[in-house]
Amino acid sequence: MLNKKYLEKLIALMNESGIDAMFIAPSEDLEFLMEFSPHMDERFQGLFVTNDNRLFYIVPQLNREEIQGVLGNDGSVFDWGDGEGFLGVLTKAFEDYGLLGKTIGVNGTARAVNMLDIQGRLDINFKNGKTILEELRIIKTEEEIDKLREAARMADNVFDELTRFIRPGMQEKDIKNKIEELFMEMGADGLSFNPIIASGPNSSKPHYNMDSRVIKEKDIIIIDFGCKYKGLCSDMTRTVFVGDISEEEKKIYDIVNRSNEAGEKAVKVGVTAKSVDEIARNIIKEEGYGEHFLNRLGHGIGYSVHEAPYIKGDNERKLEKGMAFSIEPGIYLPGKFGVRIEDIVVVTEEGVEILNKATKEPVVILANS
Amino acid sequence: MLNKKYLEKLIALMNESGIDAMFIAPSEDLEFLMEFSPHMDERFQGLFVTNDNRLFYIVPQLNREEIQGVLGNDGSVFDWGDGEGFLGVLTKAFEDYGLLGKTIGVNGTARAVNMLDIQGRLDINFKNGKTILEELRIIKTEEEIDKLREAARMADNVFDELTRFIRPGMQEKDIKNKIEELFMEMGADGLSFNPIIASGPNSSKPHYNMDSRVIKEKDIIIIDFGCKYKGLCSDMTRTVFVGDISEEEKKIYDIVNRSNEAGEKAVKVGVTAKSVDEIARNIIKEEGYGEHFLNRLGHGIGYSVHEAPYIKGDNERKLEKGMAFSIEPGIYLPGKFGVRIEDIVVVTEEGVEILNKATKEPVVILANS
Repeated sequence: MLNKKYLEKLIALMNESGIDAMFIAPSEDLEFLMEFSPHMDERFQGLFVTNDNRLFYIVPQLNREEIQGVLGNDGSVFDWGDGEGFLGVLTKAFEDYGLLGKTIGVNGTARAVNMLDIQGRLDINFKNGKTILEELRIIKTEEEIDKLREAARMADNVFDELTRFIRPGMQEKDIKNKIEELFMEMGADGLSFNPIIASGPNSSKPHYNMDSRVIKEKDIIIIDFGCKYKGLCSDMTRTVFVGDISEEEKKIYDIVNRSNEAGEKAVKVGVTAKSVDEIARNIIKEEGYGEHFLNRLGHGIGYSVHEAPYIKGDNERKLEKGMAFSIEPGIYLPGKFGVRIEDIVVVTEEGVEILNKATKEPVVILANS
Repeated sequence: MLNKKYLEKLIALMNESGIDAMFIAPSEDLEFLMEFSPHMDERFQGLFVTNDNRLFYIVPQLNREEIQGVLGNDGSVFDWGDGEGFLGVLTKAFEDYGLLGKTIGVNGTARAVNMLDIQGRLDINFKNGKTILEELRIIKTEEEIDKLREAARMADNVFDELTRFIRPGMQEKDIKNKIEELFMEMGADGLSFNPIIASGPNSSKPHYNMDSRVIKEKDIIIIDFGCKYKGLCSDMTRTVFVGDISEEEKKIYDIVNRSNEAGEKAVKVGVTAKSVDEIARNIIKEEGYGEHFLNRLGHGIGYSVHEAPYIKGDNERKLEKGMAFSIEPGIYLPGKFGVRIEDIVVVTEEGVEILNKATKEPVVILANS
C-alpha cells in the first residue's frame, strides 16, 4: 500500500531540486513510502518514482510475487532473472519511462557498485537524494509519536530489569542477549540496532561492538540499546557502576548528566539544531573535557534509528513541532572509561517532551542486593 | 591485524585491472582483510588500499580508538567529527596519497550517496571493485572449510531439533526464534541471515520474509536458515510437510530432490558454474516446471552468506578445488506452494563434498508423534 500523501510531498521536493526520478532501494525510506521493505541481498532492486507521478519497481524474479502484491495497480513491476542480470530490464524500463539522459536521485542505501554498472551502460546523472527522503519524515505525526513513546517506555522497562540482572562474572554479550529477550517478551518487533555493551576500559570507545569481556567489580558499563515497536524506534543509553563509583567517575558522570539536562532544556520550536548542540557541549567544554566529547549531540529517530534532524555543529535547521531526536552527550577518556547518557525527546508546542523516564541518577549495582 | 597474504593478492589484482586504490567499506570484505569490521551506521568510513601497498582508513572520531587498535602501524587513520563531515578529511588524505584524478575501486557495500558527494568535490573515477574482492576469497583454505563444515553441522542439528519442535498452531516467527535460540546454545557466533520460514501459500514466494502466519495441518513449510561459526557461514533449506503430504506435493518434492542431487553430482574441478546450473535446471525443465524455478542454482559462501562463485546461467567460471557454494533448486507455484532443497558443497580433488547431512527424504511432521 503506497502512502499517497508522502508520495505527493516527495514529488514536490524532487521538482524543487531538479530531480527527474528517485530511486529508493530497500530501507526505512521504502518502508515508509510503501509500507513494506523487502530484505536486501546482493541482488539489485528498488522503487523508481518519476517527477510526473509514475512508479515502477525493478525486482529479482524470486521477489516478484511479493512486490507485485504490495504495489498492486500503483506501478509496473520489471523482473530480472539470475542468469541475465538486472541491466537489460533496467534499460528497457528507463526507455519506457523516458529516463535516459535524466537526473536520478538515490536514497542512502543505494549501492555504489549498482550505480557504476548503470552508468557504464546508460547516460544517467545520479544525485544524492538522501536529504529529500529524510525531509519527508522529519515531522512525526501524533500516531508516530505515540509509537515512539511506547518504544521508549519499553526501553525504560528493560533498563529497570537490567539493573537487577547485571552481576560481576557475566559477559557483555549476556547483557546483550537479555536485552533482546526482554524486548521480545514485551512485544517489540525486534531490536532497533545491535546493543552496545561497553564495560570497563571498553566504555571509552563510544561505538564499541565486541562483547566477550567479563564484567568485574568496580566496572563502569555503558548500555546503549533500543527496540522497534510497530515500525518506530527507541534508543537510550545509561551508564551504570558495578559495586562502587570512584570520585573521578562521579565527577565525569555529573558533567555528562548536566550536559544532557541542559541540551534537553534548550529544545524548543524555532531554535537551531546547532544551538542545542552548542549549549550541551559548552557544559563539557567549560569543565575542560571538550576534546573528549567526540560525537554530535544527537540524531533524529523514527522509522530509522538514525535520521534527520541531526543535532550537530553544522546544522542550521530550525526545530519544529513534531521533530524527534536523541540528546546524548558523552565523555570518553581513552584507556580509562567513558560515560554517555541518552534520551529521546520530541519538540512540542510548549517546548520539549522527554520520552525516556528511567532515572539519570548514577546507578550503582550491588552484587548481593 | 591485516592479512598480508590477501593484501598482496588484492594489490596484484588491482594492478591487473587498472585500479589505483580500493575503497572497502565495513563488510565481510573488510573483516576478511583486517580481521575486523565495525558496525556500519550512516557515517562514512572504510579502508583505502593503494596499488603501491599503502593503507589509510577514514573514520568517524568516535570509532578512531577502535580502528587505530586494529590497524596499528600498518596504516594511517584520518578521523572526522560529526560537526564537520567527512569530505574535508578525505580531501586531505587523497592529496597526501596522490589519489586526485585517479581510479578508485569500491566494494559492494560502499554507498552511492557517499561516492556522489566525493565526486561533487573531487575529480575521482570510481569503478566497481566487487569482483576483485570476491576473487580474493573464492578458494577456501583447509581451515576455512573446517569452519564451514562445523557451521553446516550446527544447521543439520538445528533442523533435526525443529522436526520435533514444529507443531500446528505456532506462528512462523516462533520457528524463527527457536532457530536463533538453538544456534546460540550450540555456540554459533549468530545467525548468518534472517531465517526464511514460509508456510502454506507463502512457500511459493522464494524469499518470503514476514512471519505472522499460523502453521496449520497439511501445510508445507520452507525453512531456510544458517549460522556464522568463527566468521564462516552455513545456509541450508529443507521443505517439510505438516500432518500429511498430497500427491502433487510429493511429485514436486521428488523433482526438486532429483534436481538437487543431479546438481551436486555435477560438481567437479574444471566444469563451468553454468553447466552445473544447467544440469540441475534441466531436470525441472524436462518435467515442465522450468518457468517455476526462478532463481540461480546457487551462490558461493564463506565470510559472506552470498559471495562468488555464483552458480548461474551466465557464469563461465570453471570450478576449482576449495570453492564452496550452495545447490538450491526450487519450484514455486504462485498461490499454491513451493519446494526448495539446499545444501552447501565444497569442490574437492575427487569431486564434491556435501557439507549438509540432514535427510532429504520428505519429512512429514505428525502432531502427536
